[in-house]
Amino acid sequence: MNAESRRVKAAELQAFITRAFVAIGISAPEAASIAELMTRADVNGSDGHGVFRLPQYIRRIKGGAVNIKPAIRIEREAPGMALVDGDNGMGHLVMRFAAEKAIEKAKSAGTAWVGVKASNHAGPASLYASMPIEHDMIGLYLAVGNANHLAAWGGLDMLLSTNPIAVGIPAGAEPAIVLDMATTVAAYGKVKTAAQRGETMPEGWMIDRQGQPLTDPKRANEGLLLPIGGYKGYGLALIFGLLAGTLNGAAMGRDVVDFNNDDTTATNTGHVIVAINVAMFRELGEFKASVDQLVRDIRNSKRLPGVEAVRLPGEQSHAKRDAHTRLGIPMPAPLLQSLAALAAELKIAPLA
Amino acid sequence: MNAESRRVKAAELQAFITRAFVAIGISAPEAASIAELMTRADVNGSDGHGVFRLPQYIRRIKGGAVNIKPAIRIEREAPGMALVDGDNGMGHLVMRFAAEKAIEKAKSAGTAWVGVKASNHAGPASLYASMPIEHDMIGLYLAVGNANHLAAWGGLDMLLSTNPIAVGIPAGAEPAIVLDMATTVAAYGKVKTAAQRGETMPEGWMIDRQGQPLTDPKRANEGLLLPIGGYKGYGLALIFGLLAGTLNGAAMGRDVVDFNNDDTTATNTGHVIVAINVAMFRELGEFKASVDQLVRDIRNSKRLPGVEAVRLPGEQSHAKRDAHTRLGIPMPAPLLQSLAALAAELKIAPLA
Repeated sequence: MNAESRRVKAAELQAFITRAFVAIGISAPEAASIAELMTRADVNGSDGHGVFRLPQYIRRIKGGAVNIKPAIRIEREAPGMALVDGDNGMGHLVMRFAAEKAIEKAKSAGTAWVGVKASNHAGPASLYASMPIEHDMIGLYLAVGNANHLAAWGGLDMLLSTNPIAVGIPAGAEPAIVLDMATTVAAYGKVKTAAQRGETMPEGWMIDRQGQPLTDPKRANEGLLLPIGGYKGYGLALIFGLLAGTLNGAAMGRDVVDFNNDDTTATNTGHVIVAINVAMFRELGEFKASVDQLVRDIRNSKRLPGVEAVRLPGEQSHAKRDAHTRLGIPMPAPLLQSLAALAAELKIAPLA
Repeated sequence: MNAESRRVKAAELQAFITRAFVAIGISAPEAASIAELMTRADVNGSDGHGVFRLPQYIRRIKGGAVNIKPAIRIEREAPGMALVDGDNGMGHLVMRFAAEKAIEKAKSAGTAWVGVKASNHAGPASLYASMPIEHDMIGLYLAVGNANHLAAWGGLDMLLSTNPIAVGIPAGAEPAIVLDMATTVAAYGKVKTAAQRGETMPEGWMIDRQGQPLTDPKRANEGLLLPIGGYKGYGLALIFGLLAGTLNGAAMGRDVVDFNNDDTTATNTGHVIVAINVAMFRELGEFKASVDQLVRDIRNSKRLPGVEAVRLPGEQSHAKRDAHTRLGIPMPAPLLQSLAALAAELKIAPLA
């Protein structure tokens, strides 16, 4: 089955993803909901967390690791918080439910902290941190990653994942600020991409079990990812994991399931989404004007020699969204081939 | 005036700090409250943020930069949030008020996010992140630092401070986990200490305005601190500043006052304290057992060659607290001399 790299319109991609999930037994509205979020990831340029993951998601559903008919529900609730039980459903459905709940609660409570357990991989963190922005709220998202590639600082036992943080901040005339980052120097997806391409990794991404730099990505399973800022990034990965995992009764530490190498075990993935209602703190127009001013001060900064532009978090994603919406999403040949194979396997119409 | 380095009992130190603040016009109960927190900082080993700061605090009060009779109050409130107006009072008073408010609100709301404006330097972040722990709550603290030593990634304009994060997590039989970190590789206090001692800084702490490593701490004012993880730490410093500063109508970016070089201008310092009521999310005993398990898994990890111990955030501070409580707080000669000079200036009894 051959395919050449080409651009695919977002609507075509979304329709294809929907077909795949319907074929595997997910209800049409839920399939469309997941597909919309996965497509949004690709449109935003988060290409390691969009349709690229579809074959793995389908494989894990077929393996029985994920519940295709989840009863997602609020298990506990108070004015400023909720705990969502995802019933082992697709993470996108669970997190959309949780983010909507946080936004709803923050309307009256001012701020709402919604913890999630029994969820699954939900795509890029920025998707959920951005949801409150449309409601003039700040979004803050934390998660426990679905594989441990990190040890405590100085240790060798892989007890931590690349636990990410994402924060979305509404602006006025300027685009929203959206930070989305793993607490490691490199996300594990970057290592896998380097291996695929036969590239060498820079020093600082990984170490081997002697503490020496590991630069051959094909040997990644012998090594450890390095946290940002040494012991500081270890501290952040640990704390984000405690907040997104342990607090919610979700997997953390030794209980984290490596979902890359397992198609049958529920991950019990934990997340947190916090919605912060800006107008409760400060007159909304003033806040937005302050953010705009800061964005402009940063963008117009004097620059270090050789630096082309000083950027805001999310700026490159905004640019990709514009281009991908206009021109379609660039899809490399190996990805198109794996999606064609998936279509054949599921007996659905291939990607148009 | 000479003095030799020696250990000072916490009670003596606290009494001395109280005398100093009473002498400058702060009411006795408020002076005692500030002194208790500053002493706690020294007892915990946060020696750059304890009594070391007293001469500067007194100087800024004398200069009119800080209000000694603040009317600290809730300006806005909803079930899950509050905005505290510190009325330009000492940061310790303002933050104690804010943390108590967050804890009180989290009892019923489950989680409470309390923003603070018109505050001042409040000592180490860990003090406030730890307060909810005694109530079986998690504490999360963010602040805007009181001097900009950091640029946006690739930029030269110093628009950002070392904006710290601190998180306190209650455990069961194990000591609580307390993370307290600046978003830069080195806090500016470390640079000042290196300069005092005539030491060279390691590469990676600072760069000069050409982007080259700056290792002479005496030239620190020509350079920029580096964030952890490059653009990622820049993103964290920016986001923490937006949450602790901009959201609350406190100083951020170009509006931050360098309180090291200014004794007359109010800083309008912003902070955030979030209290998260663990029992609202999960049975408290189960949570604590999970934290204990994780702590032990980390502590008992296999170690990289040459590594003596794998530590939890806050572990070294716990050890110092034990030693300092038993033996007194070690105080270097230059600090004792500056406190003796302060006692003479304020006409109060010197440190016993």
